[in-house]
Amino acid sequence: MRDDVPLAATAAGGTRGDEECCTLATGPLDAADAQRLSEAFKALSDPTRLRLLAHVADQGCASVCACDLTELMGISQPTVSHHMKKLVEAGLVTREQRGRWAHYSVVPAAFAELRAFLDLR
Amino acid sequence: MRDDVPLAATAAGGTRGDEECCTLATGPLDAADAQRLSEAFKALSDPTRLRLLAHVADQGCASVCACDLTELMGISQPTVSHHMKKLVEAGLVTREQRGRWAHYSVVPAAFAELRAFLDLR
Repeated sequence: MRDDVPLAATAAGGTRGDEECCTLATGPLDAADAQRLSEAFKALSDPTRLRLLAHVADQGCASVCACDLTELMGISQPTVSHHMKKLVEAGLVTREQRGRWAHYSVVPAAFAELRAFLDLR
Repeated sequence: MRDDVPLAATAAGGTRGDEECCTLATGPLDAADAQRLSEAFKALSDPTRLRLLAHVADQGCASVCACDLTELMGISQPTVSHHMKKLVEAGLVTREQRGRWAHYSVVPAAFAELRAFLDLR
């Protein structure tokens, strides 16, 4: 073991500039936060789901009808529903039923939390 | 279909304040970007891996020895190696072999790209 050397002393040797010296702003994660964040990242780990999410978020405050997502992406309504359900369960979007169609909106606070975890200072 | 109604007209009705009105800064994703981003998010979809990453990033510019991660997290060296390999493959950390031990550092540009995708404006 290298217990004679403190962690900070194992630096790569200053090959990166100060502007890139960076630490996760949130510091070490406890188990509960790690579990919650990992579930949100899992919802983002599918390319079709990311593209659906980008379409929803691209509407700003507006919610987006599942019917429009089907048309924009050229995928079936059951496939849209399956992917959007994962994003809703992860807390990244909300779903509102209006008559025949579900409508989706982004949850800004959820995005802010993921950005905060990925923020290097 | 609702082709008589533009997407932006399906707004939820102004129940959210202007400061929360937001659009993904990157706009719609093409298939290649969606694939690449989804692979990075997949690497972040495991709680143990997130905690390992937080420990590495918590050292700033310094690289972290696999031996220290084993000790900090109380998990076996093969488990540390398995998880760190996924993070390296996703481009989120780099690995350098020094003698017996691998040392890991974060890749700030990869974090910046994920934050940019999650940035709502």
